[in-house]
Amino acid sequence: MAKEVQTIGVLTSGGDAPGMNAAIRAVVRQAIARGKKVKGIKRGYAGLLQEEIIDMDAHSVSEIIQRGGTILQTARCLEFIEPEVQKKAADICKKHGIDGLVVIGGDGSFKGAQKLAALGINTIGLPGTIDLDIACTEYTIGFDTAVNTAMEAIDKVRDTSTSHERCSIIEVMGRGAGYIALWCGIANGAEDVLLPERYDYDEQALVNHIIEGKKKGKQHHIIINAEGIGHSASMAKRIEAATGIETRATILGHMQRGGSPTCKDRVYASTMGALAVDLLCKGASNRVVGYRHGEFVDFDIDEALAMTKGIDEYQFEICNTLCNS
Amino acid sequence: MAKEVQTIGVLTSGGDAPGMNAAIRAVVRQAIARGKKVKGIKRGYAGLLQEEIIDMDAHSVSEIIQRGGTILQTARCLEFIEPEVQKKAADICKKHGIDGLVVIGGDGSFKGAQKLAALGINTIGLPGTIDLDIACTEYTIGFDTAVNTAMEAIDKVRDTSTSHERCSIIEVMGRGAGYIALWCGIANGAEDVLLPERYDYDEQALVNHIIEGKKKGKQHHIIINAEGIGHSASMAKRIEAATGIETRATILGHMQRGGSPTCKDRVYASTMGALAVDLLCKGASNRVVGYRHGEFVDFDIDEALAMTKGIDEYQFEICNTLCNS
Amino acid sequence: MAKEVQTIGVLTSGGDAPGMNAAIRAVVRQAIARGKKVKGIKRGYAGLLQEEIIDMDAHSVSEIIQRGGTILQTARCLEFIEPEVQKKAADICKKHGIDGLVVIGGDGSFKGAQKLAALGINTIGLPGTIDLDIACTEYTIGFDTAVNTAMEAIDKVRDTSTSHERCSIIEVMGRGAGYIALWCGIANGAEDVLLPERYDYDEQALVNHIIEGKKKGKQHHIIINAEGIGHSASMAKRIEAATGIETRATILGHMQRGGSPTCKDRVYASTMGALAVDLLCKGASNRVVGYRHGEFVDFDIDEALAMTKGIDEYQFEICNTLCNS
Amino acid sequence: MAKEVQTIGVLTSGGDAPGMNAAIRAVVRQAIARGKKVKGIKRGYAGLLQEEIIDMDAHSVSEIIQRGGTILQTARCLEFIEPEVQKKAADICKKHGIDGLVVIGGDGSFKGAQKLAALGINTIGLPGTIDLDIACTEYTIGFDTAVNTAMEAIDKVRDTSTSHERCSIIEVMGRGAGYIALWCGIANGAEDVLLPERYDYDEQALVNHIIEGKKKGKQHHIIINAEGIGHSASMAKRIEAATGIETRATILGHMQRGGSPTCKDRVYASTMGALAVDLLCKGASNRVVGYRHGEFVDFDIDEALAMTKGIDEYQFEICNTLCNS
Repeated sequence: MAKEVQTIGVLTSGGDAPGMNAAIRAVVRQAIARGKKVKGIKRGYAGLLQEEIIDMDAHSVSEIIQRGGTILQTARCLEFIEPEVQKKAADICKKHGIDGLVVIGGDGSFKGAQKLAALGINTIGLPGTIDLDIACTEYTIGFDTAVNTAMEAIDKVRDTSTSHERCSIIEVMGRGAGYIALWCGIANGAEDVLLPERYDYDEQALVNHIIEGKKKGKQHHIIINAEGIGHSASMAKRIEAATGIETRATILGHMQRGGSPTCKDRVYASTMGALAVDLLCKGASNRVVGYRHGEFVDFDIDEALAMTKGIDEYQFEICNTLCNS
Repeated sequence: MAKEVQTIGVLTSGGDAPGMNAAIRAVVRQAIARGKKVKGIKRGYAGLLQEEIIDMDAHSVSEIIQRGGTILQTARCLEFIEPEVQKKAADICKKHGIDGLVVIGGDGSFKGAQKLAALGINTIGLPGTIDLDIACTEYTIGFDTAVNTAMEAIDKVRDTSTSHERCSIIEVMGRGAGYIALWCGIANGAEDVLLPERYDYDEQALVNHIIEGKKKGKQHHIIINAEGIGHSASMAKRIEAATGIETRATILGHMQRGGSPTCKDRVYASTMGALAVDLLCKGASNRVVGYRHGEFVDFDIDEALAMTKGIDEYQFEICNTLCNS
Repeated sequence: MAKEVQTIGVLTSGGDAPGMNAAIRAVVRQAIARGKKVKGIKRGYAGLLQEEIIDMDAHSVSEIIQRGGTILQTARCLEFIEPEVQKKAADICKKHGIDGLVVIGGDGSFKGAQKLAALGINTIGLPGTIDLDIACTEYTIGFDTAVNTAMEAIDKVRDTSTSHERCSIIEVMGRGAGYIALWCGIANGAEDVLLPERYDYDEQALVNHIIEGKKKGKQHHIIINAEGIGHSASMAKRIEAATGIETRATILGHMQRGGSPTCKDRVYASTMGALAVDLLCKGASNRVVGYRHGEFVDFDIDEALAMTKGIDEYQFEICNTLCNS
Repeated sequence: MAKEVQTIGVLTSGGDAPGMNAAIRAVVRQAIARGKKVKGIKRGYAGLLQEEIIDMDAHSVSEIIQRGGTILQTARCLEFIEPEVQKKAADICKKHGIDGLVVIGGDGSFKGAQKLAALGINTIGLPGTIDLDIACTEYTIGFDTAVNTAMEAIDKVRDTSTSHERCSIIEVMGRGAGYIALWCGIANGAEDVLLPERYDYDEQALVNHIIEGKKKGKQHHIIINAEGIGHSASMAKRIEAATGIETRATILGHMQRGGSPTCKDRVYASTMGALAVDLLCKGASNRVVGYRHGEFVDFDIDEALAMTKGIDEYQFEICNTLCNS
């Protein structure tokens, strides 16, 4: 039967994402409002194993909703796949009285939460990743901020590409998922978008497209390249050689992970954080919170990890049509 | 039987909103890709009646996706409720060969589209308003940009409120709908949010809340006030008199209507613009495009206008809990 | 003979300004590097009288350079004009071992520093005000950020003014000094700028200018109004009545005081903070740091307070020419 | 004796910079106000040789002051060092009636202006480069915007560096001049700044500094690397290997060249553009406009090109002190 938790731990794991602080704040404040204690675990699972555990109160999370990064910090923890390590982590939770745990991270982090749930710690996962690559949810904490950061940077690159009539290759984050690339493709009016989901990298087609655009009087040619697809700098050299048109690569890199979160990221991360606490208060465990079909919902972690999703076909199509018609 | 249109007109009507240019661009480019002609109608229905109609091609909408406002401009047209005026407008459309029309605006603008549809012009409405106050859709063009503009401004007011330990009343747009106020309430960590949907304005409760916060050591007290609720400047004077705490009002005003659109506004407005054209190509008329339950869908305008929606109860609750626990 | 100070106090006084935190950080870190102790005084002179004095170390000012407002907070202190109050303040400084004091604020704050200097506390003033209204310096901490905040807001208002073909009156800060208004006038391409330094408010001339612009096909008319000049909302009503053109007022208000400081404000405030410490280390007192003729310099406070400056004639002239030619 | 020009040409040359559009607008509008004709020359000297010359009126420069890039576009023109090419360019100017020419660019562009002046075209140079590497002036068009763009990006990288406790190497523009690096060093609180002016690259010292910072509890280590100094990505690998601390490189690249100009860039570029016209109206030639010792002034191009300047010693010193004390 569902037990109600008394002390809620919270950690951030994997790559950081803007809005994680809003989620931490919501977990802490909602837990206090529900009469629970809250403990912050620093540096993700790695910190848990080191017992880097701090007491948190309402004031611990003052003035953080607008800040990028995560005040709890984060780290990778490869050894967490070992059953004895998981057991040790569960024991540490119990030692510190943590009977409920909110894990903010991606699929890898949810696997850890799954194991801890099996070991008697009630766990709830919150989807935190700028890549939007979590199948059970249409929203992940940080994507909205990251995609706006990328878009604003590309707007700037576009200014100078137009002045110099250059071809620009802009590499955005998203090793296995092209959402940032696709959204920027539409939002920045990019002539070409290269996505991991549509890996049919045909450099000759790109070259032809650039030459054809030049003939039609285009003053620039923007190619948005998701992280996973080849090496932007050497691509730029080859394209310049083949087209005779000056071509430059820009790799946006880690700036996409930081910055003050957008309104959507603050509001949705806050809602998810509060929901995670309310789920723990109802005795739920081994669940992940998602946003689907216009609603905040929760899934069994096992089911969530088995889901898949792809990019939107219609948006992929119009990305091309609206720029090149 | 559904007829396929040959020439698509597009106009913006009512208050402008960031992302309208992205929608116009999408209508024009998608129409060209589908082999249609496109005509831009300036200044909304008022301009239609004056035959302010221009030919548009792919180049007409270059470099506008990132710009605020609407290149077609907009205007109110009170006389459009008169049947003979509607008849005249339909005749002008026919004279110019416009057999399909995309109307970007709010409920009032859709009523005009409804009338024109009855008079034989195939019409599609797109929801364009920063207030999010269109019942059939969870997304309206411009809301995401406006709410980020408001949030960023309030972040700044909060800095100085904290330095001076002031109470600040910040009035945001939304005469009949408190979405901007509620989202900013959560995103800016406001102590109080006054919404038209929850009109129970109890100034004594506010005063007590401010005094109590001061006792608990709060360094500021932020009140977000939706446009419709009373007069912010006189409220500030009364509150300062009652609490003895310096209180200032800021009215964000028209800056919330402008600015370069966010990524979401660019992407969703582009998608909706393309969809409107595809609906016209299928012979649809008297429809409005919405985003609901995670999908872009379309509704009969009559049904859309009959729908109602309210603010999210859970978000209203956590807005209070997360700030004041 | 000049004495070298041992313990440096720092306070912010008057209205807050972005960059004050950068200056505080520089005072603290430079003092530590020079082997001094540092004490922070909260809430300006009012807090000094209440002995709100805290020890500061290098870590106290971590992660503040990018934050608006002032971590030391600020307050007005009208009673500081009384000699016995000044005496008490000097005694409190001595009691806490503060023999050097950095005062960040405007002319009023420097007067307090002058009195404390006469009472044996070595004082250095740093010009902190968004209004740029300190005669001895071409730069004041916060102006660069404030003028960019105002400009960006006006860019947004302009978008919607153009869409609606409106006249917009935008009130910016600067009760006694029109620098923000003049810079925005040039930077936003305003049709009219109303400055306290040029008070010849001729409403009929404005009305004529608006009507004439409309005839020439102008799609908007932007009037930037410095705080001191009349009441923007009633001006808007009168102008709308006289011109028949929709006219709206926006009062930017306190948002101009907040926000993350610009690069210039961070760099110059840091430099001034370090300089203030170096001056105290040389035994200087009753000085104010300024930026003049391209250099950081320091003046006797008495001389500084006697200086006057006006707006740049050439810039006032081109503000008009570039918009209206 | 000085002749007064009748028709003023304007071109942008070399790398583009935000604010160039403000300068072009000012040249055009001031010239019209002075009763002159204006011609725009596209693509710099290359376009001049191709006679890419357009008539410009007040309306040609509407709505450009807030836009990045240059509406006249720009290009390199290596062949312009040939005397016969210079002669051809002067002949083209004369053919089109251009007797005065404003050249917006860097030192290389001024050399072209010098040659044209000798061939009878009155020329004025305006300093346009984000690198601030023009010796005769303390201000160049674009630097203020570029340094804010870089700073904001580095603020974001810092968020994620702190979350992950990483070392970050951030490469900013400035091949031969470290101003962007130095300003960001101070403004972002970077632990190390590598400047071309101070080329004493000692990787072991860096490594020691990083290790020492870690021991003192620093949560990140930011290294700002001016473009000219070595290869950031391989530096990151070596540092990670030597310190055992995760180290990532970010190359900000061309985004630093674009974006809407800051208030200072709009105001100063406007002033310089107007001044250039007023100089031509007085019969001046072979001059470059600068900002020095707090004033807009003009120099003989020959003298300007012979000047040198270096980075500010005091700022270089405090950059280190304020971060590491």
